[in-house]
Amino acid sequence: METDMEVILKTEAEVGAGGFSVKGGENKGIFIKNVQKESPAAKLLSMREGDQLISATVYFDNMKFEDALKILQYSEPYKIQYCLKRKIPSAAAAAIGPEQVDIKEFKSIVVGLLSRKSIQCLH
Amino acid sequence: METDMEVILKTEAEVGAGGFSVKGGENKGIFIKNVQKESPAAKLLSMREGDQLISATVYFDNMKFEDALKILQYSEPYKIQYCLKRKIPSAAAAAIGPEQVDIKEFKSIVVGLLSRKSIQCLH
Repeated sequence: METDMEVILKTEAEVGAGGFSVKGGENKGIFIKNVQKESPAAKLLSMREGDQLISATVYFDNMKFEDALKILQYSEPYKIQYCLKRKIPSAAAAAIGPEQVDIKEFKSIVVGLLSRKSIQCLH
Repeated sequence: METDMEVILKTEAEVGAGGFSVKGGENKGIFIKNVQKESPAAKLLSMREGDQLISATVYFDNMKFEDALKILQYSEPYKIQYCLKRKIPSAAAAAIGPEQVDIKEFKSIVVGLLSRKSIQCLH
């Protein structure tokens, strides 16, 4: 009986965690080809050669407009999920509250005051 | 007293959900500039003008190698979180199990058999 196992690993969110190369593509999947020793990918993300890249969550904090555009353009044909922040005007918020947003349309929704740092969607 | 509110919305994961443009950049953040009526962005993601893009999770299913490379290159300087699939050889898995992977190094870990579709990290 085949007892090979697989683990699905979610890394921490890190800034500038480079130092790895990839191979594969199309129906084969994208795999880690090489991880440079002592690189951020090795030390912060604990990546290993042979790991398959399932998904990458990119955060737009302090991102250059041109880079955001490129990432969005190259990602567009593929499966993608967005985390959005939407402001609700004070009058509407007081009168209607979060029901102004049709919750059914979204996978999840978190409500907070503007002054509060909303990090729930960030991890 | 200021009662403006903000909601953090997580869209469904959709393929080819284009039809929007962005503005902003650097310290200002990336915002939805325009959403084309009847576009996938409008209908599938319920995006609205003015929404701030917090993050985008890109899935590498059936992705062209060149596109994966571009996305990874443009994302590298910024905050990014990966979901990885790692195979554990049958002998090691039988003998050691998931402890072979140092759980402390990762935000989360899911263990499954190779034959099972591992979708826990996909949403």
